[in-house]
Amino acid sequence: MDIDVPSSFDERDWARPVDGAPVRFAVLGLGWFGPDVAIPAIEESDFCETTVVVSGDREKAERVADEKGVAHALTYDDYADGEATDAYDAVYVVTPNALHLPHVETAAELGKDVLCEKPLEADAARARKCVEACEEGGVELMTAYRMHTTRSIRWVRDVVQDGAIGDPVHTRGAFSYNLIAAGEDMDQWRLNPDLAGGGPLMDLGVYPLNTSRFVLDSDPEAVHATTVEGPDEFDGLEKYVAFTMEFPDGAVAECDSGYEVAGDNYFEVGGTHGRIRVDVPFNVDADRTITVSAGGEEQVVEVEEPSEMVEEFDYFATGVLTDMAIGPDGRHGYEDVRIADTIYESGESGGRIEL
Amino acid sequence: MDIDVPSSFDERDWARPVDGAPVRFAVLGLGWFGPDVAIPAIEESDFCETTVVVSGDREKAERVADEKGVAHALTYDDYADGEATDAYDAVYVVTPNALHLPHVETAAELGKDVLCEKPLEADAARARKCVEACEEGGVELMTAYRMHTTRSIRWVRDVVQDGAIGDPVHTRGAFSYNLIAAGEDMDQWRLNPDLAGGGPLMDLGVYPLNTSRFVLDSDPEAVHATTVEGPDEFDGLEKYVAFTMEFPDGAVAECDSGYEVAGDNYFEVGGTHGRIRVDVPFNVDADRTITVSAGGEEQVVEVEEPSEMVEEFDYFATGVLTDMAIGPDGRHGYEDVRIADTIYESGESGGRIEL
Repeated sequence: MDIDVPSSFDERDWARPVDGAPVRFAVLGLGWFGPDVAIPAIEESDFCETTVVVSGDREKAERVADEKGVAHALTYDDYADGEATDAYDAVYVVTPNALHLPHVETAAELGKDVLCEKPLEADAARARKCVEACEEGGVELMTAYRMHTTRSIRWVRDVVQDGAIGDPVHTRGAFSYNLIAAGEDMDQWRLNPDLAGGGPLMDLGVYPLNTSRFVLDSDPEAVHATTVEGPDEFDGLEKYVAFTMEFPDGAVAECDSGYEVAGDNYFEVGGTHGRIRVDVPFNVDADRTITVSAGGEEQVVEVEEPSEMVEEFDYFATGVLTDMAIGPDGRHGYEDVRIADTIYESGESGGRIEL
Repeated sequence: MDIDVPSSFDERDWARPVDGAPVRFAVLGLGWFGPDVAIPAIEESDFCETTVVVSGDREKAERVADEKGVAHALTYDDYADGEATDAYDAVYVVTPNALHLPHVETAAELGKDVLCEKPLEADAARARKCVEACEEGGVELMTAYRMHTTRSIRWVRDVVQDGAIGDPVHTRGAFSYNLIAAGEDMDQWRLNPDLAGGGPLMDLGVYPLNTSRFVLDSDPEAVHATTVEGPDEFDGLEKYVAFTMEFPDGAVAECDSGYEVAGDNYFEVGGTHGRIRVDVPFNVDADRTITVSAGGEEQVVEVEEPSEMVEEFDYFATGVLTDMAIGPDGRHGYEDVRIADTIYESGESGGRIEL
């Protein structure tokens, strides 16, 4: 076998000299992910700093600012009014999906670069407006797909693109989580169609969807899908989706995602001459195992790598501070939402739909 | 976790008192599987015996009869003419798919019970004729899906049906083999549309298809599929197929199969509260590993079990000699071919098609 799976990944393949750091962030959205994951990652990063936190709730903003040692605490209204604009260079948007657009528009108007969580928005029309706003404002827009800065996943993409498993024939991947069994609150925004724009597909299914595009370095030209409607509390959202994406060169992606099915978290690429599987690719800072099978041999390696969140922030800062083009930019993130909308359309109509 | 995976499977759950054994077999079709796999399994079985071998080539029939100690060697013409009918009670049909029908019709006319390899025929119309012929002739017809008599797979079906992983949400499975990389002869019958009736779906993909039906104990009501056409030597047959089956209770099966992709062989069921995966389910007499994950725990067990081919022959004999209804009967096998035809139709038209 020509493939040697590294047990650790020592380099940023995108690293280059950076002038002008730090990029000072306003973090918009203070649910668990912002304070517990993003702000510590920014703290750990080389090129970033959190200088502003923004929440709908002033007390919460002040409490988080105090706990995290952040200088400025704003409400969303303060932010929209342009308060403290001298204190930050970029925004990290980690609000419910359907609230991304107004925050991105404000950032674009204020000339602030934007790192926006996935999916870019709740539907394709709104995602497109995010892209247009940033293009008009002349600011960077990155869609925060962690898999693009996860070193092990970048390695998978590279060896697949180098032909190490022959021609890619298909990907398979799933990301599921039984939030009912976990006893989660049924009133959360992820189960609100107006805020989420969809069920597990928008929250979790976009991971195998986007990772297929990333690793194949290609965009699908058609999809077909099955959606299974959730219980009443899901308010019309799907509880399960299985979707197939057809790529121009004949490769096929088969993915699924659910909110009322036992946890599931894997990604696999099958080529004409071998397979690469990653277990637990999609959880943040997960312990990942890579299994490569080719030529009758199998390697199973538990890999170690730095936090992809730290990588993500430094990657974004490098894109902002140098002429490096950002991979998962706004248009890339828009494409996922367009594909997701089409998956829902296929789930309704039952047809294969060309993109 | 309530599930304890056995490391061996000591019982035939279908066993019952049998009178009148052995069932004496005419084995029709002397490619590698008949002489190398089936005849030794019959030899090892409790209730079966090979008394006749039948081939298109008289010399081959005589050579195999001699090597295997079988009393009668016939050509297909001899068989069709009713030679040596007193020497056998049942036929095992292991010819190319599109040759099943005439042999099954002859058996039905002669009053011989039939164990017929999968898929039952090359298309649904011909498969239906097999069923009708046997019903008219008053003989048993079993479709030789080994998974139905594989003890570990029967165990998986039982625990799934008992609710051990909650409600079944989906199955996933694949069976692929790169016959081009293996240097196989491109003139073989499996690549002849007239004889095979399809590509890898008919040869390999029917395994995850049928095993999904078996383990869910349900039949799909709709399918959608992507097919990728093979190179010229495939004569219009697909080289890859990914298909989704929708079951009445909302469960979904996602399967794929290919002839020009790295080997692949797994089956998984995901329920609301756990998952069961079998690795290498579909190879004959494979070493199988069962992985159960539920309640945050994982069990991985390499299971030992007797040859499912021996089980298959004794199961069939038990069905013939007692009032036990045969599970994968002719109608069950017909349904697979009907589903496969619909998968091809969906691959052509791009639509979800109700069955």
